[in-house]
Amino acid sequence: MNDFTYYNPTKIEFGKGKEKNIGTYIKEAGFESVLLVYGTGSIKKSSLYEDTITSLKNAGLRYEELDGVVSNPLLSRVHDGIKIAKNKNIQAILGVGGGSVADSVKAIAAGAKYDGDVWDFFIQRAQIKEALPVFTVMTLAATASEMNGNSVIMNDKTKQKYSISSVLVNPVLSVINPELMASVSKDYLAYSAVDAIAHSIEVYFTASSHPNFNSRIVESIIKSIMETTEILIADPDNYKARGEFAWVATQALNGLTPAGTLGGSFPNHLIEHALSALYNVAHGAGLSVVIPAWMKWYKDQNLSQFERFAKEIFGLDNADAGIEALESWFAKIGSPITLKEAGIPQDAIESLAENAAEMATFWGMSEIYTKDVIVEILEKA
Amino acid sequence: MNDFTYYNPTKIEFGKGKEKNIGTYIKEAGFESVLLVYGTGSIKKSSLYEDTITSLKNAGLRYEELDGVVSNPLLSRVHDGIKIAKNKNIQAILGVGGGSVADSVKAIAAGAKYDGDVWDFFIQRAQIKEALPVFTVMTLAATASEMNGNSVIMNDKTKQKYSISSVLVNPVLSVINPELMASVSKDYLAYSAVDAIAHSIEVYFTASSHPNFNSRIVESIIKSIMETTEILIADPDNYKARGEFAWVATQALNGLTPAGTLGGSFPNHLIEHALSALYNVAHGAGLSVVIPAWMKWYKDQNLSQFERFAKEIFGLDNADAGIEALESWFAKIGSPITLKEAGIPQDAIESLAENAAEMATFWGMSEIYTKDVIVEILEKA
Repeated sequence: MNDFTYYNPTKIEFGKGKEKNIGTYIKEAGFESVLLVYGTGSIKKSSLYEDTITSLKNAGLRYEELDGVVSNPLLSRVHDGIKIAKNKNIQAILGVGGGSVADSVKAIAAGAKYDGDVWDFFIQRAQIKEALPVFTVMTLAATASEMNGNSVIMNDKTKQKYSISSVLVNPVLSVINPELMASVSKDYLAYSAVDAIAHSIEVYFTASSHPNFNSRIVESIIKSIMETTEILIADPDNYKARGEFAWVATQALNGLTPAGTLGGSFPNHLIEHALSALYNVAHGAGLSVVIPAWMKWYKDQNLSQFERFAKEIFGLDNADAGIEALESWFAKIGSPITLKEAGIPQDAIESLAENAAEMATFWGMSEIYTKDVIVEILEKA
Repeated sequence: MNDFTYYNPTKIEFGKGKEKNIGTYIKEAGFESVLLVYGTGSIKKSSLYEDTITSLKNAGLRYEELDGVVSNPLLSRVHDGIKIAKNKNIQAILGVGGGSVADSVKAIAAGAKYDGDVWDFFIQRAQIKEALPVFTVMTLAATASEMNGNSVIMNDKTKQKYSISSVLVNPVLSVINPELMASVSKDYLAYSAVDAIAHSIEVYFTASSHPNFNSRIVESIIKSIMETTEILIADPDNYKARGEFAWVATQALNGLTPAGTLGGSFPNHLIEHALSALYNVAHGAGLSVVIPAWMKWYKDQNLSQFERFAKEIFGLDNADAGIEALESWFAKIGSPITLKEAGIPQDAIESLAENAAEMATFWGMSEIYTKDVIVEILEKA
């Protein structure tokens, strides 16, 4: 175990109907007003929007609304939210939706307490010193955004998909009700599974020091994600599997898996962000393209861990077979495994690599992940 | 996944030398004065006491001291601490020591904000509504007390060893420096391993609903505890194993393993508390006596999980063999597996069962764990 600080103060309210208490949760935490942020209308197709408004009203909270958050969430909409929060003197931000909504509310929360442009935090021109308290009600499991301080936002002007990470924007409280996630399409279920697996394996493969315990936890996460995904593809109404999938996905990126490891990085996320920035592919779909390519490129740098992965996850006895098995599984659940399947032309590789290599400087990864290396990886996809 | 609330706001500072910052941590959290609580002097044999005092002084904190906390910590000493905290207008409580010290500071923290006798909380005559903030520097890994709101205290007058659980006494911050744990004796290392395993298996075996993910996490914990214990017995100076042991023990009782399970209970802890209350055996030593006996008695009520345990932990194909293997492992690491080995006479069973059965009412377990049943279990030990 290497030195670390672990701190995750997010309270999770997990279970059926808990979103109906969201007003009470916010009130009990000491707040009187809230900005409700959501997406492009799916919460109005169910009773979720009505339930949320009713809960806020019953708790006596003053509220404003911001809708229209899209997948690969945009900085421009974050700016809109910050404006409302500042002008209307809002005390807390509530996101109701998936990872994009959760990411947006964190950026709004940080920006609402900052005099400059919130983008400064993403390009590391400024550090988050304070933020409005964040609450979320999740409708999609994948990003673990409900229980971490990460936010990934797309600058619609510069086409940079960049991120921040601060415990100051960890949600104070998040509701995870698996029933709200039952309407997800098969495609997005697959992308979510890929995303959760991606969160688990980045540090697992790249850390220079990775305790056995951390490996066991990561393998537990991957096995449970694969198991529950297969159940849900066959039986979307399986509440038990839906709930387990959601909670396992949360564990994949809430600080538990990297605690005590050393030197891990997120190369697959680095490269994927370029794919979704330039071609607006779903994050999970981009990841299932990048991961097998990256694994093939990287494998020999940590062969024993790739052999372990093959054995523990698939019962196979060599690294290559493990990579192939994961790739096949991505294909089996319906997530793309080539650039072509993701709708990205082969001649886009140069511009993708340029976008990712630029971001690598902000992630402290530019020594290894040069443009040339990223081209080499993407050519395997 | 069944409904649950997960909330663990304790910050962990893990690593070498971090105890030297404890004054700064307390100061940065906003406090000016602290009651330093420790045991019977072992922290003065190393530089830990001096380092702590220096850190408190350097941070400009006013401090008082309470020493003399013993294993199976006493209510009378908790009362002493509460008196100091109240009389000296103390703002925070710092425990430097093992599980008993951590348990004591929590009880002091709750009692210092209460007008009645703190024992009221233990016998459920009153509920904890507020508490002073708790900080800990751990010198022993086992109880996970550094990252939960549990406290077990022994009423020296009534010989009741009872417990409280409240997130209000979760430490604000705990330091885990594996180097401070390196001087533990082989006996106490073994007892600590038993304790961590005990924390993991109680809900694993007793829950009426236990998701696969939770089982995988528990199995990861048990495997890592067994693996690192064996390394440490052979090589006590192995820092890597010492650190992994410490962090895994923390995970065994910080709320992660039971989240989403239903109907789990802690029968082995229930019965063991009687052993240490009446015979002052170390908690882990008592547990290694109780666990195999309880497993034999309980096995048929959840046979498939006992079969799973045998297979996953020991690669064995039946429940009985798994129980025997665990019992043998306890013996191998030097923890007692019979009442006799723990220095408890066979004719004590009646009084032990009476003590435990009384406590069962407070734990909501009196329907199953009657005096007769506990006699039946202990007779197998």
